[in-house]
Amino acid sequence: MPTREKSYAALLAELREISLLSYTGQVLSWDEQTQLPRKAADFRGDQLSLLARLAHERLTSDRLSDTLGALESSGSLGAEDSDLAVNVRQARRSVNRAKKMPSDLVAELARVGVVAQQAWVQARKASDFPSFAPVLEQMFGLKRQQAACLGPTAHPYDALLDEYEPDETALGVSAVFESLRAPLVDLVGRIAGSARKGRGELVTGDYPRAAQEALAREALVAIGFDFDRGRLDVSAHPFCTHLGPSDTRITTRYNERRFNDAFFGVMHEAGHGLYQQGLPTEHFGTPCGDHVSMGIHESQSRLWENFVGRRRSFWIHFLPRLQAAFPGTRGVSVDDWYRAVNHVEPSLIRVEADETTYNLHVLLRFELEKELLTGNLAVRDLPGAWNAKMKAYLGLTPPDDARGVLQDIHWAFGGVGYFPTYTLGNLYAAQFFEQAQADLGDLDAALARGEFAPLLGWLRDRIHSRGQRYTARALVERVTGRPLSAKPLLAHLERKASEVYGV
Amino acid sequence: MPTREKSYAALLAELREISLLSYTGQVLSWDEQTQLPRKAADFRGDQLSLLARLAHERLTSDRLSDTLGALESSGSLGAEDSDLAVNVRQARRSVNRAKKMPSDLVAELARVGVVAQQAWVQARKASDFPSFAPVLEQMFGLKRQQAACLGPTAHPYDALLDEYEPDETALGVSAVFESLRAPLVDLVGRIAGSARKGRGELVTGDYPRAAQEALAREALVAIGFDFDRGRLDVSAHPFCTHLGPSDTRITTRYNERRFNDAFFGVMHEAGHGLYQQGLPTEHFGTPCGDHVSMGIHESQSRLWENFVGRRRSFWIHFLPRLQAAFPGTRGVSVDDWYRAVNHVEPSLIRVEADETTYNLHVLLRFELEKELLTGNLAVRDLPGAWNAKMKAYLGLTPPDDARGVLQDIHWAFGGVGYFPTYTLGNLYAAQFFEQAQADLGDLDAALARGEFAPLLGWLRDRIHSRGQRYTARALVERVTGRPLSAKPLLAHLERKASEVYGV
Repeated sequence: MPTREKSYAALLAELREISLLSYTGQVLSWDEQTQLPRKAADFRGDQLSLLARLAHERLTSDRLSDTLGALESSGSLGAEDSDLAVNVRQARRSVNRAKKMPSDLVAELARVGVVAQQAWVQARKASDFPSFAPVLEQMFGLKRQQAACLGPTAHPYDALLDEYEPDETALGVSAVFESLRAPLVDLVGRIAGSARKGRGELVTGDYPRAAQEALAREALVAIGFDFDRGRLDVSAHPFCTHLGPSDTRITTRYNERRFNDAFFGVMHEAGHGLYQQGLPTEHFGTPCGDHVSMGIHESQSRLWENFVGRRRSFWIHFLPRLQAAFPGTRGVSVDDWYRAVNHVEPSLIRVEADETTYNLHVLLRFELEKELLTGNLAVRDLPGAWNAKMKAYLGLTPPDDARGVLQDIHWAFGGVGYFPTYTLGNLYAAQFFEQAQADLGDLDAALARGEFAPLLGWLRDRIHSRGQRYTARALVERVTGRPLSAKPLLAHLERKASEVYGV
Repeated sequence: MPTREKSYAALLAELREISLLSYTGQVLSWDEQTQLPRKAADFRGDQLSLLARLAHERLTSDRLSDTLGALESSGSLGAEDSDLAVNVRQARRSVNRAKKMPSDLVAELARVGVVAQQAWVQARKASDFPSFAPVLEQMFGLKRQQAACLGPTAHPYDALLDEYEPDETALGVSAVFESLRAPLVDLVGRIAGSARKGRGELVTGDYPRAAQEALAREALVAIGFDFDRGRLDVSAHPFCTHLGPSDTRITTRYNERRFNDAFFGVMHEAGHGLYQQGLPTEHFGTPCGDHVSMGIHESQSRLWENFVGRRRSFWIHFLPRLQAAFPGTRGVSVDDWYRAVNHVEPSLIRVEADETTYNLHVLLRFELEKELLTGNLAVRDLPGAWNAKMKAYLGLTPPDDARGVLQDIHWAFGGVGYFPTYTLGNLYAAQFFEQAQADLGDLDAALARGEFAPLLGWLRDRIHSRGQRYTARALVERVTGRPLSAKPLLAHLERKASEVYGV
């Protein structure tokens, strides 16, 4: 009978080895999106699928289950947030989830995911939803099977949401989203009807790529991104990935006619990157060194993108740098620029949406994917349902499906349950930032001086360093003293609307 | 009892899966040398070591041995160069080699290899051989153990050489190298004493990086490198790697004061790349789709670098392009430039050596590593032995060990038996090229018109498409009708010496 110490060491070693495999997959994916020669994609797909299978085999092995069982039956594991208790509890979670999934279903989800993504790329290009519908139908069929395997849960959606936002439920998300929808629709309407117009035209014009990249790198270094432990590159779809404890990579794309895309894109991905760089490296590869949930991840990206990057005080510090980089902005005042980067206007595409309307795009997707999963909404009726909600929430009707129901890749790769984490991230971010302001004194004065270390230190201490010790909801309550609520986000958006549009 | 077809399908599937793992390691290595953030190296080392171990486990599994055994006992496998016979024979070779290596020794070689490479970097920087000696001693101890495990062989060196040049022996290499040494030393002496001096000064001067890269890319496309299936990037040490059937990546480094380094470096790596791109993709991951040996690989790189890239007719086509890219070369004639890129002069550093003296650098290393392995030469006596041979073969004495015995990384990573493949490559290249000239008619006329497809087609047909069907020596004999000999290489070098130096 091995002692508890031996079992715990064996658990950590096995978890770390599984993480070596999964992070190897991350290297292959990063390379795929930034470097891969055109004709090399098929082989890369085979490699990724093999690595996923190897990691799944390890996670479901008898050896790992025995080790976990020995630890669980070895008596009290100490405080709920002790290293031992957290690592055993969270490893058990992952093992149980993995074991409930038949390996055939895992393989089929991976296979159909690749097929569906290829079909989606073509369908989007041709704005041809019917060509995508059969494989989308197939994918939702597999997701229903997956939910059944992982269940029973109160709602089948819960089983899928759990992958991205552990312990969250459709009911819980609905409750907080419900308190958001009507006030947001109302706010967007008031802004549209306001006499005072935005200054959105200032962020379009002549923004040469090299100067954009230099300014983005300057901002990254200023807010604390460590280039000895990370990179910034170019890819068709911006992302942030984590290839190891000291290897966090951000990508972006440059639009020489519009300032916002790259700059705020980089600030967004940098928020993800700062979270990853702030996770405790001594716990790397184990739950104590891993992120809480996609929602908490998104809270960090949204916080740096919107609560810092689109803040007036941030531009007190950065406007001279902007003006040195782009001579065309030299006559612009801090207030003008603040209004320009906070322009609100309903639009068709989620990833280009402003901070306020963005959440309505997410609500729409959350509502539709739940109905698709239960079968209350048929795939063939999806475009109509999409367009009806766009009209109701944003007052717009997509001119074609490419700019409507076909715009996002998520359903094609099987990411049902992913969308709500975007708005959960906004909600968490607002509540965290409100608390940081209360804890740190005059945060705006610091930002105006270009001092970001106090805020980053606060996030490191309260959130990053904690790994998976707490669920997302428990973490929010622990850090802010209050349960999750829509109020801080609504207050933040109302305040900006008042400053920018006088409504 | 499975039928032969079933066993063969199982063999191919298993070999392909092992190759998925090894090629994943190649992606990690390429990324390490071109992209990796400074602090991410340790974790990358752990990943590479895990992948090596997983591949070794698969190669030594009972399942693979059983499959091979079933095929071997299933009766005649057909002609020796049939797909079935080749794949079974070569897989058996790899399995037997892997099984003879205890996994502890595999792990220890990997571990000491990393330590020794780090020690080598420091020792070379400080030109401090004594600080490197203990770990080099340890490495040669492990290589002796490895040779013992893999043996018995006529000479312990044979067991190590076999990893890079299958079926070659120390005796076989010595025989051909012996016929090379005296004529080469004599030729180098005659060139040094010739009244006619080289035009080496023309290749130094002002060679801006962007223009070098553009010209190198133009040359790559011209000779047939497929950028849809490959890349060209920058790294500290140039190399070519193969990440999959359609993913061949070349790296180089640019020296803005010297033309040769990047241009001929790229031509060299392109030769490796063209070989990889020419291997039959339908056999990828199995011996029929793999390269013969490091020597044959090197024959392709040397052929494109020296027999094509340093050929007079090549520059009839490329000189106008060179002059458009570098205005400083506009007064230069084809003959001047031909003399410039074929300047011969004894020098201290192997990788910067000209085509003629290069082989003497290799002979010296081959002779020394054999003696180190048997223990006839002690590690502490190595610098003295090195310097004595440099004096005898090239008339030079290294001013310090950094420019002497510490210049190459090979012994640090355990690559004992690797050096001779460089000169074997030169020998194979000369013999292949002589045959191509005989088979293709007026090859120089084609090269002068920038037509490289006939030569590449010849190499594809005779060499690339054959995979591992023949050993290196058998391939040479099959393609040229004669056994390997030093004569074609000596004739080639004598001809150039006569044209450039009148000797």
